[in-house]
Amino acid sequence: AAEEPDTYFNRELLDRKSDRRSDSEWLAAKQASPETVFLLFHQLNPLVSSRAEDAEDGRPDMRLCKLRAPAVQELLKNSDTVVVFLGVEKQETGDGLLAWFALDTEEDPTELLKAEDPSCFFLPGAMPGLLRLSDDDAGVVAQARSVLAWHSRYRFCPTCGSSTKVEDGGYKRTCLRAGCRSLQGVHNTCYPRVDPVVIMLVLHPDGNQCLLGRKKIFPPGMFSCLAGFVEPGEALEAAVRREVLEESGVQVGPVQYVSSQAWPMPSCLMIGCHCVALTTDIKVDESEIEEARWFTRQQVIDALVKDKRAVFSMPPRQAIAHYLLKHWTGFNANL
Amino acid sequence: AAEEPDTYFNRELLDRKSDRRSDSEWLAAKQASPETVFLLFHQLNPLVSSRAEDAEDGRPDMRLCKLRAPAVQELLKNSDTVVVFLGVEKQETGDGLLAWFALDTEEDPTELLKAEDPSCFFLPGAMPGLLRLSDDDAGVVAQARSVLAWHSRYRFCPTCGSSTKVEDGGYKRTCLRAGCRSLQGVHNTCYPRVDPVVIMLVLHPDGNQCLLGRKKIFPPGMFSCLAGFVEPGEALEAAVRREVLEESGVQVGPVQYVSSQAWPMPSCLMIGCHCVALTTDIKVDESEIEEARWFTRQQVIDALVKDKRAVFSMPPRQAIAHYLLKHWTGFNANL
Ligand SMILES: Nc1ncnc2c1ncn2[C@@H]1O[C@H](COP(=O)(O)O)[C@@H](O)[C@H]1O
Ligand SMILES: Nc1ncnc2c1ncn2[C@@H]1O[C@H](COP(=O)(O)O)[C@@H](O)[C@H]1O
Ligand SMILES: [Mg+2]
Ligand SMILES: [Mg+2]
Ligand SMILES: [Mg+2]
Ligand SMILES: [Mg+2]
Ligand SMILES: [Mg+2]
Ligand SMILES: [Mg+2]
Ligand SMILES: [Zn+2]
Ligand SMILES: [Zn+2]
Repeated sequence: AAEEPDTYFNRELLDRKSDRRSDSEWLAAKQASPETVFLLFHQLNPLVSSRAEDAEDGRPDMRLCKLRAPAVQELLKNSDTVVVFLGVEKQETGDGLLAWFALDTEEDPTELLKAEDPSCFFLPGAMPGLLRLSDDDAGVVAQARSVLAWHSRYRFCPTCGSSTKVEDGGYKRTCLRAGCRSLQGVHNTCYPRVDPVVIMLVLHPDGNQCLLGRKKIFPPGMFSCLAGFVEPGEALEAAVRREVLEESGVQVGPVQYVSSQAWPMPSCLMIGCHCVALTTDIKVDESEIEEARWFTRQQVIDALVKDKRAVFSMPPRQAIAHYLLKHWTGFNANL
Repeated sequence: AAEEPDTYFNRELLDRKSDRRSDSEWLAAKQASPETVFLLFHQLNPLVSSRAEDAEDGRPDMRLCKLRAPAVQELLKNSDTVVVFLGVEKQETGDGLLAWFALDTEEDPTELLKAEDPSCFFLPGAMPGLLRLSDDDAGVVAQARSVLAWHSRYRFCPTCGSSTKVEDGGYKRTCLRAGCRSLQGVHNTCYPRVDPVVIMLVLHPDGNQCLLGRKKIFPPGMFSCLAGFVEPGEALEAAVRREVLEESGVQVGPVQYVSSQAWPMPSCLMIGCHCVALTTDIKVDESEIEEARWFTRQQVIDALVKDKRAVFSMPPRQAIAHYLLKHWTGFNANL
C-alpha cells in the first residue's frame, strides 16, 4: 500500500469543494459562467467524441465532450435534467475557480443541445465502453456516473415512497412528504450510495500459485480475481474469507489490503486484497462462477505479457484485478 | 494489517450460510425447529437482560435474550414482523445445524411474546447502549441491526415508490409493481446498504504527534480520529485526503490501511487508516468539528492508561479509533 497505483477511474482531476454544494447562489453563478464545463450523460452514457488517430490496441480512443453554458441552457431549464456539481479545476484561471457539472436526462437530449458538435455521441454500454477513456476523463466519469446512477434509481423516498427533491448540488435527495421519518435525524436514505466490494487474489499456501475464476459473462479464456459485496455487519477481512469460501470452497487465513478503486457500475468501491489460502481443494459455486483454477506465477506472467504460451487471458489493465495480479508477479515494468 | 484485532462488532459467531437464503423450505423448517435461536428487536433495539454481577467499569453488562420458537410463534405470524436469517452456529449440534434469526417489529411486541422472561427489556439508545454487549453478542447484533435498519428505512422501491416484498431470508426487497425498472438486471436498490467510511489517525510530519478532533456531541474532554463517508467515484486513499482536508485544513500524503470494523449505526463499514500529514496548520470545519489539535504520543499514552496527567479522554475501547490510537503508541498490553 506504500506505493499507490494510478489506477483507472481513480485520478482526481477536480477538487470536489463539497463546502460549495449547499451554496445555491454560488452554484447558480457558476452554471451561468461562460468558462464552466458541462459533461452530458444520457441514460448514464457520457457524451464523447472518438479520436480515431489514437484507436490503437489498448490506447484510449474516446474523449469527453466538454460543453459550455450556451450549449446546455435549454437542458438546464428542463426540470427532468439532473445536475451534479463535480468540483473545480485545481488550477485557478484568470476568472477564478473553473467549475464542472454533470447533466443527465432520461430522454434523448439531442434536440435541446445548441450548437452541438456533430461528431459527439453517447458512448453506449458500460463494459467495455467506459474503459475506453483517458485516465483524466475516467476519474471524472467515475464520480459523475456514480452519482447520476443513484439519481436514476433513487427518485422516490425509500422510507415512504413519496417523491423527492434534489439538494446540495446533486448530493442529496430529500423527501417531499412533510412528516416523513427520513426528515428526522441523519440517515443514509438521502445520500448517494457507495457499495463496498472486496476483490482478492488468493495465494496458494506454496506461495507460487494463485486462484482465479471465471464468470460465464467473461470473454472466452479470461480469468480474474474473485470478488463480492461486503455484507452488513462485516469487516473487510471477514468479507474476503466468506466470499472466497462461498465462490471456490477455499479457506483463507491472513488478508492483506493492497489498494482500492472506484468502479462506477453503478457505484462500487473495489477494495483490493491479497490473501493466503489454508486449503487448496476447489469447489465452485456454479450459480456465480463457471470455473476456478490455481495458476502458477509463470502462467500469470505469460498472460501479462501476452506470451503465446499463455493459458488464460488477463482482466483488462483498467481493472484493479489486473493490478493485483501484476503486483503479485513483482512486475513493475510498464506493461 | 498482519495482526487482525478482534475489534468489537467484528466477531463472527455464526456462519452466514448465504446459499440457504433462497431455500424457503429449509428456512421454514428451521423457524419451526425447537433448537433455533430468535433474537428480537423493537425499533432496532435488541432484547437483552442485564447482568448486574458484571456491571463493573468497562465490562459488558448486557446479554442478548435468546428466544425459542414457541415464544415467537405469534410474532412470526404477524405480517409486520421482519425476519432475517443470520446464519448457523459453527459447531453442529445433535440435531444438525442450529440456525439463528433476527425479528423486528415497529409496534411493541411484548403482547405477542409468549412466556417472555420478565427480566428482558429492549436496550434503548444506540450509543452507548450498543457498546455494552459481550464481544460474541456484539458481532451478531452488528449483522442483525444493520439489515433490520435497512428494512426499516427501505420499505418502498426507490426507483418507482411502490411497495416491496422481502425475499432471500431478509437480504433482498423486490418491487411489487410489474414492469418496474428495478426488476430488470442486477441493481443495488434490492440489497441491504453498507456505507463505507474512512477513519484515520493523521500523523504529524515529526512522527511524534497525531491529529484528533472533537464533535460537539462527544462527551466532554473526548477527542477522536477524523472520519467521513467515502464518496461516489472515490478510492479510499482519496477519501482520506479529502476528509482530513475538509475537516481540519491539513494536507495528507501517504495513507496506510490498518484494519476495519462493522459499525451498525445504521450500517457503516469503518475503514481504519494511518496517514502522514504534509502540513500542520489547523483550520477546522466548524459545521462538523468543534476543535482539532495535535497531541503528542505521551499525551495519547496518558489518555490510554487514564493517567491523571491526561489532557483528553480516549474514544471507547469498542471503537476502531481507540485501536488506531493504541496501535500507534505501540502499546500491546491489554489495557
Ligand atoms: N449492492 C449490491 N449490488 C448488486 N448485487 C448485490 C448487491 N448486494 C448483494 N448482491 C448480490 O450479490 C450477487 C453477486 O455476488 P457477489 O458479488 O459475489 O457478492 C448479485 O447477483 C446479487 O444477488
Ligand atoms: N451515507 C451517509 N449517511 C449519513 N450521512 C451522510 C452520508 N453520506 C454523506 N453524509 C453527510 O455527511 C455528513 C457527515 O460528514 P462525514 O462523516 O465527515 O462525511 C452528514 O452530516 C451528512 O450530511
Ligand atoms: Mg462474486
Ligand atoms: Mg459471491
Ligand atoms: Mg456476495
Ligand atoms: Mg467526519
Ligand atoms: Mg463527508
Ligand atoms: Mg467530513
Ligand atoms: Zn419519505
Ligand atoms: Zn419499483
